[in-house]
Amino acid sequence: MTLPSPLPKSPVMLAAYRARAAAADLAPLPRAPKDDALLAIADALVVRTQEVVAANAEDVAKARAAGTSEAIIDRLTLTRERIAAIAADVRHVASLPDPVGEVLRGSTLPNGLDLRQVRVPLGVVGIIYEARPNVTVDAAALCLKSGNAVLLRGSSSAYASNTALITVLRDAVGGAGLPADAVQLVPGESRDSVNELMRARGMVDVLIPRGGAALIRTVVEGSTVPVIETGTGNCHVYVDADADLDMAVDILVNSKAQRPSVCNAAETLLVHRAVADRFLPRALDALAEAGVTVHGDPRVLAVAESSGSKATVVPATAEDWETEYLSYDIAAGVVDSLESAVEHIRLWSSGHTEAIVTGSQPAARRFTQLVDAAAVMVNASTRFTDGGQFGFGAEIGISTQKLHARGPMGLPELTSTKYIVTGDGHIR
Amino acid sequence: MTLPSPLPKSPVMLAAYRARAAAADLAPLPRAPKDDALLAIADALVVRTQEVVAANAEDVAKARAAGTSEAIIDRLTLTRERIAAIAADVRHVASLPDPVGEVLRGSTLPNGLDLRQVRVPLGVVGIIYEARPNVTVDAAALCLKSGNAVLLRGSSSAYASNTALITVLRDAVGGAGLPADAVQLVPGESRDSVNELMRARGMVDVLIPRGGAALIRTVVEGSTVPVIETGTGNCHVYVDADADLDMAVDILVNSKAQRPSVCNAAETLLVHRAVADRFLPRALDALAEAGVTVHGDPRVLAVAESSGSKATVVPATAEDWETEYLSYDIAAGVVDSLESAVEHIRLWSSGHTEAIVTGSQPAARRFTQLVDAAAVMVNASTRFTDGGQFGFGAEIGISTQKLHARGPMGLPELTSTKYIVTGDGHIR
Repeated sequence: MTLPSPLPKSPVMLAAYRARAAAADLAPLPRAPKDDALLAIADALVVRTQEVVAANAEDVAKARAAGTSEAIIDRLTLTRERIAAIAADVRHVASLPDPVGEVLRGSTLPNGLDLRQVRVPLGVVGIIYEARPNVTVDAAALCLKSGNAVLLRGSSSAYASNTALITVLRDAVGGAGLPADAVQLVPGESRDSVNELMRARGMVDVLIPRGGAALIRTVVEGSTVPVIETGTGNCHVYVDADADLDMAVDILVNSKAQRPSVCNAAETLLVHRAVADRFLPRALDALAEAGVTVHGDPRVLAVAESSGSKATVVPATAEDWETEYLSYDIAAGVVDSLESAVEHIRLWSSGHTEAIVTGSQPAARRFTQLVDAAAVMVNASTRFTDGGQFGFGAEIGISTQKLHARGPMGLPELTSTKYIVTGDGHIR
Repeated sequence: MTLPSPLPKSPVMLAAYRARAAAADLAPLPRAPKDDALLAIADALVVRTQEVVAANAEDVAKARAAGTSEAIIDRLTLTRERIAAIAADVRHVASLPDPVGEVLRGSTLPNGLDLRQVRVPLGVVGIIYEARPNVTVDAAALCLKSGNAVLLRGSSSAYASNTALITVLRDAVGGAGLPADAVQLVPGESRDSVNELMRARGMVDVLIPRGGAALIRTVVEGSTVPVIETGTGNCHVYVDADADLDMAVDILVNSKAQRPSVCNAAETLLVHRAVADRFLPRALDALAEAGVTVHGDPRVLAVAESSGSKATVVPATAEDWETEYLSYDIAAGVVDSLESAVEHIRLWSSGHTEAIVTGSQPAARRFTQLVDAAAVMVNASTRFTDGGQFGFGAEIGISTQKLHARGPMGLPELTSTKYIVTGDGHIR
């Protein structure tokens, strides 16, 4: 009786169509077959390392010929050791609890109906990401574990690597008895395939862009498929009037310089004027020692000069307050009060992570109440906003939006819910 | 030190800007001042009924002059009794628990950091809706209770009513000491103001369209602001081989005819072939008695003819399977198995509510596992998918998407979350 819908003609939509069918098969699966498939993937990655490394060498050679920077070539490169580490991560995902089937609420209604809200997979998840080929395996493993089919659209600069990896993954998934179409590379290396993916509403349940700000903006603005925005972090460290200044120096330097290229690194320092004269000279020296250039407001520049600091301090412009440097740079300003700090953060923050250093309980409480961000740190480095650090076991990205998921996203964030209502002939 | 961002020039963006400021004030509020404002709204609606009714009379007169149908005029009309009922609903919202501040997870991490995930308001919620002016008050009350500022964009046919209602609401909110800008009418009666609202990403946190399928599609496709899709319900009742046929007739008629104009009414009947000959004649007669026209597939037509049914049965076309009639019409087909029913539902369902009538536990389990919808009913009417019926106390809409919220949305669905991480100088 049902009419078959015509098969889509475009390769991207055909991939989405197959992903939907695979997702329908995955959704009712219990944990064991999914874990078996993950362990098969880990084994296959180790056994077939050589073919992945060979394909990766092609991408690396092309990138080198194109004059790509060594930092990006390093991110692109797969070695035997790196593949072994990726395989170990997949085994770790297999060891995590399965979110699917978890009962979130349940009750018997006054009329006797049994109501349960249970976690179910989202369905088809599209991931659009940049160079790192390890994301290919990571994302596939997390989606599979949470019962989702995944459409992977990596950078064209990693096309050979991703093709080889996905061949290994699909063989392993199929060999374990699950639908191979649960893991697919989005066909085509051009921008068109991304555009088509972004318009596949109804076929793709969610798109998660992972990469730089430009990529994320493109996906957010061009997509009719629901998007989870990730990763832009214009994070602030606010040093309050009541801060322990030793602690504040440590937290500041750690937040900025422990790994400046990541989204949870600090990009702006705000200092309460009551401690500016005592704190800033020490902070500037510590930042200088860590190799950080400070972009200071006039009050910071004045302290730098009067204290004879050897730190590199340049004048900040309005642009500095909104810049996510991702480098050994930090903007710095003096504020008149905690409320001014909150106001500054409200104006410029990307809503990722904001930290206060304070010994005052009322100040900590006020800051955590007033600041609207995925994570608010009290006397801790901004670098802790991370799925691994939060104990989630794995992370598909850090959401900076307010809908669905906010902050580090683990396996539960890759699910939706379904109400199951059971009666014995109930009518209204 | 902070630079004031220039005030937006357009009236819509200015309203959004004011809403953001109000939202920042509302976010840290505990329950009591919000409840006080709600009770002030309820009181004011009763005291100022006359001015609302007078404004409403203008809209009604205009609608009548334009030849609007009586059904729509009835939905538009506000009387003293209806306003009293709306005020009572606001008092009820005040009596509900405040979702803000609820701790969803919490633990001490191995390194001693304290991690808490708490509910926070979404921020600024935009509601785009059709004629009913009661939605104006409902939506404002739910947003206020959950600490959100709301931008209301009602139908231009209810502009005078909505303007009067929002004046009352704003006076009451301001009088209770909360920012009046927490409740605003989106200025302008033209489509342009809707378009501007849909592009206000970063200023508006979520848009919830409430109304017909065309409105929802427009918002979903044109919006860069995250949207929660609501309300389209192409709901199915599947009568299994093992169904209690008396129960099946009752559930079918209740699902279809108790209130056909709403999204949780059934639109398609699927019958297992093993019971088609026994069930269909009774079902057709019962549907006929309820005034329902059946759009049947060839097997349904054959049974109707051979049983000499007096029901109105017309041939179904492919279009019938995807139609949300919202009227006294139902599509009906015979399927060969539970799997065929699931396959049909997968192809045509809008993912709202799907029901099975069966005495078989394995069949019920299989159906609830395989069918992907916001709500799956076992031996109960589709009409139970409703925030009130589910015991949520109030409902802002029924989400048919998978991100953020799925199914009836109550107060918790109007919130996001924030991680609060507390240490004593923790660095990585």
